[in-house]
Amino acid sequence: MSKTIEFFFDYASPYSYLASAQVEALAARTGAELRWRPFLLGAVFKATSNQSPVTNPAKARYLFKDLLDWTRMLGLPDFRMPEPFPANALQVNRLGLVAAEQGLIAPFSHAAYRAAFAEGKNLADPAVLAEVARTAGLEPAPALARIENQEIKDALKRNTEEAVARGAFGAPTFFVGEDMYFGNDRLPLVERRLRAA
Amino acid sequence: MSKTIEFFFDYASPYSYLASAQVEALAARTGAELRWRPFLLGAVFKATSNQSPVTNPAKARYLFKDLLDWTRMLGLPDFRMPEPFPANALQVNRLGLVAAEQGLIAPFSHAAYRAAFAEGKNLADPAVLAEVARTAGLEPAPALARIENQEIKDALKRNTEEAVARGAFGAPTFFVGEDMYFGNDRLPLVERRLRAA
Repeated sequence: MSKTIEFFFDYASPYSYLASAQVEALAARTGAELRWRPFLLGAVFKATSNQSPVTNPAKARYLFKDLLDWTRMLGLPDFRMPEPFPANALQVNRLGLVAAEQGLIAPFSHAAYRAAFAEGKNLADPAVLAEVARTAGLEPAPALARIENQEIKDALKRNTEEAVARGAFGAPTFFVGEDMYFGNDRLPLVERRLRAA
Repeated sequence: MSKTIEFFFDYASPYSYLASAQVEALAARTGAELRWRPFLLGAVFKATSNQSPVTNPAKARYLFKDLLDWTRMLGLPDFRMPEPFPANALQVNRLGLVAAEQGLIAPFSHAAYRAAFAEGKNLADPAVLAEVARTAGLEPAPALARIENQEIKDALKRNTEEAVARGAFGAPTFFVGEDMYFGNDRLPLVERRLRAA
C-alpha cells in the first residue's frame, strides 16, 4: 500500500503557509503521495469551539515574531502580515479546489501564500485572486466563475466536515492514515511516521 | 557577553518535560548558559486569559497521542498521563527552587518529570515529592520543610510575574535576551538564535 500525506490547510492560515513550503520535499524524501486538501479554518474553529491565536492578546503579540522567525529559518521571504488578518478566505479556498481540478493546486497554493504572507496582499480581493490564478497557470476568468459552482462549494464543505470528524481543530492538520498531526511544527513527527510506514 | 537561555517551565506541564530533555544538550552545543526558571503555569494562564489545551475536547483528544509521538521521537520512555492531570504543582515548583539553591535543579527536574510523565506519578503527593528529592540528591525532610519558607514562595511568584510581564502565556517559554520562544517545538528556533548571537 502506498503512503499518503493528507495536508488540510486554509489559505488564510500563516502556519499552513509554513507547512506548504515544506510538504512537497517531505513527500519526495519519504516516497509518499501528497494530497492538498483546502478547508475552511473558521468553520473548523466553530465546530470545535477553538479560536484563532489572534483572539488572545498575549498570543497575538507573539504571532508575528514567531512567523518571522520561522520564515527566516526556512529560507522564505520575511513574513508579512496581510491586512486584514485573517483574510476572508472562502473564495480563495474554493479557487484552490478549482486549481486542483486542473492539476494545479501546488503552484496555485505557492502563489496564493506568497501573495498573502510574503507580499501582504489580501486574498479576498478579486484582483489579487486573478493575479494568483494567472501566476499558477489558470485562466483567471473561467477559474473565478467556477468557484460559484455548487460542486466546488460542496467539495470545500466536505473537506472541512471530514477533517473535523477525523479530529482536526486547527490548521495545518496532517493525516497519515488515521494518525493525525497538528501544526507546521509537527512535520518532523509526520516524517518519522512516514519512514516507519 | 555570554549567551543565556532562560527556560521557564512548570513541573505539571508535559511540553515542558519534553523541553527539559533537550535544553541541556542545546545549551552545550551552542555554548550558552542555561537558567532553569520554574513558574506557575496556572497563574500564567489566569494572567493572560489563556487556557490549558485539555479544556478543549478536540485538543484534549489529540494531546496524549502527540505527547506519545514526541517521547518516541526523542528516545524518552513512552509518555504516561499522570492522574490527576494536570497535577497541582505548587509544591513541586517550590521544591524545584529549593533544589536550585543547592545547585541541584537539573537532576531534580529530570527526576520530577520522569516520575510524572514516564511513571504516571502524582507530583502533588508528598511521598512522591520525597522520593523525587532523594533521587535528585536532596535530603527530603529539610527540603520539604524549606518549601514553606517565604523566600521560596516569593521566588516562585516572582518568576511567574516576570515571565508574564515579558510576554509569556504558556509553558515552556524560552528567552534569549528579550527574544521569546513558546513551546518545545520552537527549540530549533532557539538554537538558530543562539548560533547567530
